[in-house]
Amino acid sequence: MRQTDPRAERSRHAMLWAARELLLRHGPAAVTHQRVAEQAGVGRATVYRHWPRVEDLLLATMSGSDLPYFRDPQPPIRPWLFGELRRLADEMAQPEVAAVTLTLMHGALWDADIAQQRDASVANINERIGAALALARASGEAVVAVNDADAATLLIGPLVYRTAMQAGTVPDEVISRALDSVLADVPRATTR
Amino acid sequence: MRQTDPRAERSRHAMLWAARELLLRHGPAAVTHQRVAEQAGVGRATVYRHWPRVEDLLLATMSGSDLPYFRDPQPPIRPWLFGELRRLADEMAQPEVAAVTLTLMHGALWDADIAQQRDASVANINERIGAALALARASGEAVVAVNDADAATLLIGPLVYRTAMQAGTVPDEVISRALDSVLADVPRATTR
Repeated sequence: MRQTDPRAERSRHAMLWAARELLLRHGPAAVTHQRVAEQAGVGRATVYRHWPRVEDLLLATMSGSDLPYFRDPQPPIRPWLFGELRRLADEMAQPEVAAVTLTLMHGALWDADIAQQRDASVANINERIGAALALARASGEAVVAVNDADAATLLIGPLVYRTAMQAGTVPDEVISRALDSVLADVPRATTR
Repeated sequence: MRQTDPRAERSRHAMLWAARELLLRHGPAAVTHQRVAEQAGVGRATVYRHWPRVEDLLLATMSGSDLPYFRDPQPPIRPWLFGELRRLADEMAQPEVAAVTLTLMHGALWDADIAQQRDASVANINERIGAALALARASGEAVVAVNDADAATLLIGPLVYRTAMQAGTVPDEVISRALDSVLADVPRATTR
């Protein structure tokens, strides 16, 4: 459905902007039809008409958005990263957020726009994790010699698998163990 | 399309069985239209007609199949697990295998049959990883105190994220680091 009516177009933009603010301030789980409608000053049915499922709404909103994770790292990095991963894991365990992650991953196989969005998210996360680890190194924490993309793989991968494949929540223990693979307690020799 | 012609039904079963043998012997990447056609003694067009995309074929084949990973663990477990994860990572890096993983994960959101298939795969992997770690413990290797599902999360998660989200291949280094989070070189106190 193509909107040409300027009023309809205006309300679509208002909804997207409201959704974007909710996403940036409160994370993906805050992007609900109800809250977007309130924030944009439109009826809930209007939001549903444009994006029938929460994941459609989230996907439209996430495009080009700067997700509120791994920003402004503060040393000591290990507990800071633990907190960020804990928050991300809790978001991802919510069915609609898991759905948008999977929609992004799956849709990227066939849709170049979605692939581009996925790649931008991935690059963004790599860069932020890298910045946090650089700060950890600079402040004397024992960081394993690992590049940014590999660190992101080791830290985020378990969250994705547990929430999307095992359909469960992520225990603190798993986050701790994942951190062990990147931020060593003691320097260790690299072995297989 | 429902097949009622017994000859057509026979050829469908032959293709599925051939695909299953390819999957079990050689892994997901071996399940191609060409090889299934050869193995089943049917024309390639017949395979395409039933399952237009490789991932459709793979998904039909995987149903109830016992994937050739993490079977028959041999101590020492660390190098054995490394080899299994290496092999799985290489399979998953192939676009059609990544596609079937994502189809399974994404499809499970809306399709109860696919969800059941996903849960069976997940349970199977948890169990096998658990068996391998039990053997490692029994033979004196230093295993972190971690349950089977968490170990699978830490070992498989990075492979899924790298291949499906970062759209890349998995370096040995990542497998090594993931193994560090489960099979410790030295016993360590559990900390955040």
